[in-house]
Amino acid sequence: MAYIPSLNLIEQIEQGNPWALGRLISRAEAGVEEARPALAEIYRRAGRAHVIGLTGVPGSGKSTLVCKLAQVLRERGEKVGIVAIDPSSPYSGGAILGDRIRMTELANDPGVFIRSMATHGATGGMARAALDAVDILDVAGYQTIILETVGVGQDEVEVAHASDTTVVVSAPGLGDEIQAIKAGVLEIADIHVVSKCDRDDALRTLTDLKQMLTLGTLTGPRRDWAIPVIAVSAYKDEGIEALLDSVALHKATQARTTAGQERRCRVAEFRLHKTAQTLLLERFAKGSQAFAPQLSTSLATRVNDPYAAAQQLISLTIRKEYRNDLA
Amino acid sequence: MAYIPSLNLIEQIEQGNPWALGRLISRAEAGVEEARPALAEIYRRAGRAHVIGLTGVPGSGKSTLVCKLAQVLRERGEKVGIVAIDPSSPYSGGAILGDRIRMTELANDPGVFIRSMATHGATGGMARAALDAVDILDVAGYQTIILETVGVGQDEVEVAHASDTTVVVSAPGLGDEIQAIKAGVLEIADIHVVSKCDRDDALRTLTDLKQMLTLGTLTGPRRDWAIPVIAVSAYKDEGIEALLDSVALHKATQARTTAGQERRCRVAEFRLHKTAQTLLLERFAKGSQAFAPQLSTSLATRVNDPYAAAQQLISLTIRKEYRNDLA
Repeated sequence: MAYIPSLNLIEQIEQGNPWALGRLISRAEAGVEEARPALAEIYRRAGRAHVIGLTGVPGSGKSTLVCKLAQVLRERGEKVGIVAIDPSSPYSGGAILGDRIRMTELANDPGVFIRSMATHGATGGMARAALDAVDILDVAGYQTIILETVGVGQDEVEVAHASDTTVVVSAPGLGDEIQAIKAGVLEIADIHVVSKCDRDDALRTLTDLKQMLTLGTLTGPRRDWAIPVIAVSAYKDEGIEALLDSVALHKATQARTTAGQERRCRVAEFRLHKTAQTLLLERFAKGSQAFAPQLSTSLATRVNDPYAAAQQLISLTIRKEYRNDLA
Repeated sequence: MAYIPSLNLIEQIEQGNPWALGRLISRAEAGVEEARPALAEIYRRAGRAHVIGLTGVPGSGKSTLVCKLAQVLRERGEKVGIVAIDPSSPYSGGAILGDRIRMTELANDPGVFIRSMATHGATGGMARAALDAVDILDVAGYQTIILETVGVGQDEVEVAHASDTTVVVSAPGLGDEIQAIKAGVLEIADIHVVSKCDRDDALRTLTDLKQMLTLGTLTGPRRDWAIPVIAVSAYKDEGIEALLDSVALHKATQARTTAGQERRCRVAEFRLHKTAQTLLLERFAKGSQAFAPQLSTSLATRVNDPYAAAQQLISLTIRKEYRNDLA
């Protein structure tokens, strides 16, 4: 019975109904089991949009950049979807620091759909939900979808990389401790952006990045694509067009070579594993509740050890949950 | 055969042999299956040390504080273990910014054992490995063990909370974007520390925290314990003794009430779930390799959807891996 209204929902989404759109994204975010047939159908119909994964450490000016990108894309006549997975994301307040009016303009534009998602929730569920949201926007006819994540934490970085073009934003003057978190983030970039290039110390960040690329410290398995470093100033409205041109060039290069196809396979594999992990852990968490309290007590008193107790929990839960799969 | 040298290893660890200690921690970190009998035995013998979980956002001065704590504890004659899970941790370099000489002193002191661990690796494996390392130090006779994690990411925060006393470090003047990440971190504190209290803007941070505690914004299910806010300046050597006194008071309160026992049960439950998740996902990752490529391809071409493909992957893998558990 739940399947039929879900399919109606899909038709409404294809017609661009923002209410239907928001509703299915909410269901995906909540991990509602009844929404899965609709999300499966969405996946099969998706695949036309260009997905830009955009990440960077806190304070790098990601959200302001995303707004500027959306503005320029709108001027070019494109519909733009934004999915932000960022605990410090300012979208929910409807305003960006120092950019309050323009953000409101964007929020009132029916050609822009902005959605903030929480990082918390079920283990691994964030990646699954975010990529479902991207597909929903894709089916709704948004031509460019920006998937913004904070570049802290393995999951967040991986999600930004599960895109057609990955943009990594660095900012000048963030200090050593913050920069150190970036290890692992810089390597996923198809395009590097240095934000806040109106500042005097931006030149050093630009030079550092270019040097790392020249020295091969950041080379990945790329062919036919020289990773550019683009200087941007949202404040002075500089570099936004150059960034979008670079995204377009990357898109064209991917289409021309086998790189695009390989990338889609890699993203599909990531998605398969993340979804499987989520479904497995969800069911495990539910099924193990019956056995956990007793095993926890035996652990707290140290008569049992974590490995033996965990093995017992797994065996008991699998036997209970997957007996039919094995019949 | 691997079991017997492992038990010798445990005897050497109990005698305080730092080489044996480091070796078993490395095995725990690598997730070596052969090390599990030894780690199980370690768990059963552990439980005497007082474990301080210490966390805070990057730039809050955690590592400097940990060094100061270790120094004072050493002056009191205690052996101190430090397990740091922090990508920006400076321990590996053997020096703390502006505190180079003292850090070297600590590193050369046989009564201090410092270990930095990576956050990356198998899903959920970090928590398991870190808590194993704490137990190893416990069995080796370290009376106080400081488990330092960066307060970014759910896993890191949860691990810091899997301790006897949780200390959350805040620093003045870190900016809004950084502070926002702290949501979810502040609530786990048994003791709040405001670091860098030689700075003029520290007073505001102190006042903010105290106000949040008074207004009940941060109250958890605590009884018999009023969460203190302690001002610390590592630079001026102020507040370190007060913090250690507060830790001692918290320890005594826990011992006097049922709170300590409840907490040990909660930590055991966390540990059971983390270990089970790790073992389950490890085996799943290994077992699913045979089926993933074909399912990924069907996903990349959108003839299959992530939910159906994931279910197929789970069924096939469980049938292969756990057939004997279900016989």
